[in-house]
Amino acid sequence: MLSRIGGMDFRSRRKKAVGVAVAAGADALLVTHLPDVRYLTGFTGSNAAVVLAGGRAVLFTDARYTAQAKAEAAGVRVTIDKRPAVAAACGWMESEGIRRCGFDGTRTTVVGLEVMRKAVSGKVRRGMFVEVGTLVADLREVKDESEVALMRKAALLGCDLFDGMLGYLAPGLREVEVAAELEHAARLRGAEGMSFETIVASGERSALPHGRATRAKLPKRGFVTLDFGVVLDGYCSDMTRTVHLGKAAPGEWEVYDSVLEAQTAAVACVAPGVTAGEVDEAARSVLRRSELDKYFSHSTGHGVGLEIHEGPRLAAKQTQVLQEGMVITIEPGVYMPGKFGLRIEDMVLVTAAGGEVLTPSLKAWIEL
Amino acid sequence: MLSRIGGMDFRSRRKKAVGVAVAAGADALLVTHLPDVRYLTGFTGSNAAVVLAGGRAVLFTDARYTAQAKAEAAGVRVTIDKRPAVAAACGWMESEGIRRCGFDGTRTTVVGLEVMRKAVSGKVRRGMFVEVGTLVADLREVKDESEVALMRKAALLGCDLFDGMLGYLAPGLREVEVAAELEHAARLRGAEGMSFETIVASGERSALPHGRATRAKLPKRGFVTLDFGVVLDGYCSDMTRTVHLGKAAPGEWEVYDSVLEAQTAAVACVAPGVTAGEVDEAARSVLRRSELDKYFSHSTGHGVGLEIHEGPRLAAKQTQVLQEGMVITIEPGVYMPGKFGLRIEDMVLVTAAGGEVLTPSLKAWIEL
Repeated sequence: MLSRIGGMDFRSRRKKAVGVAVAAGADALLVTHLPDVRYLTGFTGSNAAVVLAGGRAVLFTDARYTAQAKAEAAGVRVTIDKRPAVAAACGWMESEGIRRCGFDGTRTTVVGLEVMRKAVSGKVRRGMFVEVGTLVADLREVKDESEVALMRKAALLGCDLFDGMLGYLAPGLREVEVAAELEHAARLRGAEGMSFETIVASGERSALPHGRATRAKLPKRGFVTLDFGVVLDGYCSDMTRTVHLGKAAPGEWEVYDSVLEAQTAAVACVAPGVTAGEVDEAARSVLRRSELDKYFSHSTGHGVGLEIHEGPRLAAKQTQVLQEGMVITIEPGVYMPGKFGLRIEDMVLVTAAGGEVLTPSLKAWIEL
Repeated sequence: MLSRIGGMDFRSRRKKAVGVAVAAGADALLVTHLPDVRYLTGFTGSNAAVVLAGGRAVLFTDARYTAQAKAEAAGVRVTIDKRPAVAAACGWMESEGIRRCGFDGTRTTVVGLEVMRKAVSGKVRRGMFVEVGTLVADLREVKDESEVALMRKAALLGCDLFDGMLGYLAPGLREVEVAAELEHAARLRGAEGMSFETIVASGERSALPHGRATRAKLPKRGFVTLDFGVVLDGYCSDMTRTVHLGKAAPGEWEVYDSVLEAQTAAVACVAPGVTAGEVDEAARSVLRRSELDKYFSHSTGHGVGLEIHEGPRLAAKQTQVLQEGMVITIEPGVYMPGKFGLRIEDMVLVTAAGGEVLTPSLKAWIEL
């Protein structure tokens, strides 16, 4: 984890971020959300504040991270301080004559802002802190080349893991055993961890959109939904496949087919210039034809990257426009309480030509 | 995960929380931090806001969680809403005539507070939102009987896993393989997941306090630090042991012995009425005698429970007083950059009689 990630252009990301902050009326940008810190500096520790001011970047952290910060955040000045990182950062800004500091109000708590205010003297406090919104998170929505390369790797690892599970899944296994097997294989293949708590939802439990793996046993006949992701070099993968154990019961195949059609339609809809709401509607309208839309109780997808949930949000009426370089999930599902449910999910890269599926595992009906 | 946890007295926790909120001048308490939500209601979903008002409890979430919320949050009214949960909650409060709502400013973002304010009409907005601090987190510091029972189980599972690793650790294994083995065993033994990214730091990497498992191979001679935790029924365990592969090099044993003595001294210091700073000093003063305190670059410990890091914080000069029922970690370490490092960590329950170690795995020098 301490090695530099090849090709990451942290400097150019910082330059962009500063540019947006200055355009929003700030002299400097204070960044405390850890994935944003990593994006801008490469630092992966659990305590950090970064100040970007002009061409300068200063990382504030504590003594646990002295060696790691210097190794990871090349080209960034590292300051070790006993105070909360954000207080050290604000004190430094005042001493440097910075008088308008942009911050992300979706990541700064009410009390955190108080800490920031108290870290500077009364004479500069007024007007010092300017809420500039999610500007770093917004930049992160569009992945650069080195990020796309890492996300391809993470997505393909996810697919390999899923493909490997096909020879393992069998009635009588506990859902947690399935999760354990998957996660063990992920670790051995280089994953730092899973990007969220693995979902293994079988039989009636497949009707739970967020059915974490339990001690329930896989049934002789019924669906098993696997929704999981790995973290590889900090980047998350996310995919879902639903397979069937034993022969389909009446109606199951038809529902699967509708979900697959909805998923495929949404993937086909992905392109630069299309709105997130249009992609959502592409999936939802297919399900509406067979009156299954009422069982599709969540949104169609979300951005993914250093975090498992990033922008854009692909939901009804969302007007955000897709851009080349975004990586999103497309994951419609149908959940019939007390009966069964299923979901199919790909990661999709928005390219000039449309959408490129990064998770090529089979989506056709799989009967084991 | 959907089954109720036996014996959890959510109602009495809610009653306490409301009592503190009312004492702080609020009519109702709005809770959005998910571990707090789980603590007060049993709900484990990823999107929720809870309002406690008098004897009433209302949980706001979205349609993904309809079934799960009803199953988990017995005795709580569940409201499914398409708006952000916090906006739905605030709208409901206004309609119910609630005019002073307490919220936790360490968990509510600057923008989140704006969403809350905009969700109520202008005529009640003024004075509606009262920052009442970390009152639910404060309550959570003292575990009730059912929590202690779960934490004992989680801690013992951690010990069993560590003990099992002693027959597995060997030179040449990659750190990530060690992590994979440990995490796989944890899953099969019932863990929902790990409470943080497993630390396996071997050889020179043992000098990194937060050395996540890498592809580095365990050395023929040198320390291996394992710092890990499981999540069991929502509760986190946390423990660290450092073992030695091969024969000790000059000085290694002496440092180990000092850290062990520091750790033991801090554990012996734990009792109701003692301050967190006194426990920290008990460890630090032992290391000072052998001039190793300058290599002890972090605090002595922290509370643990539904979250891996909770209050109290056991650091220099902390005046918070330990209370019966708290569960804390005691984890001094010494890190000599470029050479080696080690840490020893127990979970300790504060009892009327002092401190009870919940992680009984061997702490003496282990040479493999």
